Amino acid sequence: MIDTPYLLFLGDAPDGLAAKVAQGIKDWRPENCAGQFRMEGCKADMKLPDMSLTEAKEAGAKTLVIGVANRGGVISKAWKQVLLEALDEGYDIASGLHNLLRNEPDLAAKAKELGRTLHDVRIPVVQYPIANGEKRTGKRVLAVGTDCSVGKMYTALALDRDMRKAGMKSTFRATGQTGILITGEGVPLDAVIADFMAGSIEWLTPDNDADHWDIIEGQGSLFHVSYSGVTLALIHGGQPDALILCHEPTRDHMRGLPGYKLPSLEAVRDMSLTLAQVGNPDCKVVGISINTQHMSDAEATAYLAEVEARVGLPAVDPYRHGAERLVEALAAL
Amino acid sequence: MIDTPYLLFLGDAPDGLAAKVAQGIKDWRPENCAGQFRMEGCKADMKLPDMSLTEAKEAGAKTLVIGVANRGGVISKAWKQVLLEALDEGYDIASGLHNLLRNEPDLAAKAKELGRTLHDVRIPVVQYPIANGEKRTGKRVLAVGTDCSVGKMYTALALDRDMRKAGMKSTFRATGQTGILITGEGVPLDAVIADFMAGSIEWLTPDNDADHWDIIEGQGSLFHVSYSGVTLALIHGGQPDALILCHEPTRDHMRGLPGYKLPSLEAVRDMSLTLAQVGNPDCKVVGISINTQHMSDAEATAYLAEVEARVGLPAVDPYRHGAERLVEALAAL
Repeated sequence: MIDTPYLLFLGDAPDGLAAKVAQGIKDWRPENCAGQFRMEGCKADMKLPDMSLTEAKEAGAKTLVIGVANRGGVISKAWKQVLLEALDEGYDIASGLHNLLRNEPDLAAKAKELGRTLHDVRIPVVQYPIANGEKRTGKRVLAVGTDCSVGKMYTALALDRDMRKAGMKSTFRATGQTGILITGEGVPLDAVIADFMAGSIEWLTPDNDADHWDIIEGQGSLFHVSYSGVTLALIHGGQPDALILCHEPTRDHMRGLPGYKLPSLEAVRDMSLTLAQVGNPDCKVVGISINTQHMSDAEATAYLAEVEARVGLPAVDPYRHGAERLVEALAAL
Repeated sequence: MIDTPYLLFLGDAPDGLAAKVAQGIKDWRPENCAGQFRMEGCKADMKLPDMSLTEAKEAGAKTLVIGVANRGGVISKAWKQVLLEALDEGYDIASGLHNLLRNEPDLAAKAKELGRTLHDVRIPVVQYPIANGEKRTGKRVLAVGTDCSVGKMYTALALDRDMRKAGMKSTFRATGQTGILITGEGVPLDAVIADFMAGSIEWLTPDNDADHWDIIEGQGSLFHVSYSGVTLALIHGGQPDALILCHEPTRDHMRGLPGYKLPSLEAVRDMSLTLAQVGNPDCKVVGISINTQHMSDAEATAYLAEVEARVGLPAVDPYRHGAERLVEALAAL
């Protein structure tokens, strides 16, 4: 569990895209953000108050979260100076970078000396069990995609937001680094040992109130040959009662796999449901989430209508239009 | 490499299945087995001479191989005493358990003091790549099962043996600790980090001669909720040209999952083939391997005939009757 509120470290981000972790935190948990820390030349802006380490500390910030990707996988000297000062100021530091904070000797030494915590959310900190497949109380919904990076995390976060708005009980369950930094906890599934993948998801989504929903962040795709095993572990460990299909319509091949076409929504629906029903025979596919960010308003509206008519399920872009219709479909289960 | 011959440690195995590591070594490399070591209450029997540590040492044994697997892989106090004595007696120890010999302080200290080697074959020794899905030369066959422990490794080892007998080029590719202990190399897939599972299988089965077959050892089952992700990584990383369906007909629920019925062979055929064709559109299901160990000769013959007629594919027990008909089906591709 990462202490909040955060001071978001944007470093010397060359553009907004480089700070997409910070953007995710700001978009979905603004209440966790005391402010942003930007270095000279930073081109990203979360529209949060710019604060020094001292100012943010006085405003209550507890953890400096690295919200920006580092260039070349190296923690630069300029960054390092800020991170060391943050430890001196009393902050913990949280990071999803590939190269770990704990492997930087100066950071590790100072954190140990001062009793601060370095959260490397890329690395599991729990000894997960092997999945036992036992039926759990409460309800679960999982987003499954035609491909990687089609909007599964945003779909889950929008569902969580709109379920709470509708007065329903829900918890977003993060399974990736950005999701973990947004919520402060979760399972970094892509770094879990193969045998414990499904068990880690059982651990993440335990028994709960009968009317509580776990909104499980999806990963990969059953049709993405690099990561499909991770997706199936989510389906079987998550034991979902409901699936949401996720798709990005403008892509011409699977992410990172030239020559691999995206599967149809129908293929993802049939394959995911058949596999999900192994663990939960009552599982249903309840809706479709389309990432229309590369479409105009008119294109998006027309595409959503076409998909909805063809597949026979509510089809929305939850980020653009809200997830209310998906929430209604879940509430009706 | 692990020094032979072995003394097979069966511990207090609750049943024969729990000692499948020892059984595999005994069945496929009997010349490497000096004898077996059983503790009180052991229900497994390899039909090898029962020996004390001292007796086996006098008979030439060099390595004590832990031939029994517990769920989750725990080294009990009772086992520990035997392992410490084995180091004193001059043995190396080899293990595929989840928890490592090297992480047991008393074993590590004694091995170091005495100059013995602790072989933890479960640990990957390679930094595997992320799968790229590119088409590779040569041919590959993968065994997929209705359940765990239905005979996928045996099927692969029998195929390898009988393909060589038929003058074909083949290599058994081990993906589990037993296979690695038998052949001395392979990928301990269940211990690989999630993101690199499929890539490890691409690495294991690289480009080869056009007429060479990699016989890939299967793991788990698409229908076993604890391990299905591992199975799918094999299907997508292995890029098989051919699948063999494996089944054990006398089981009344999935191994370790009371309440989960086994899927039909037809369900495994359809699901596996659809997923395999994502990575290799030309993949075909060519035969069925039935583990008839709990059936009489008459029962086995009748069952095989019934399955063959029903599914329309050659159905054999390769361990009982040989894998020749499966080899013919592969050669005909």
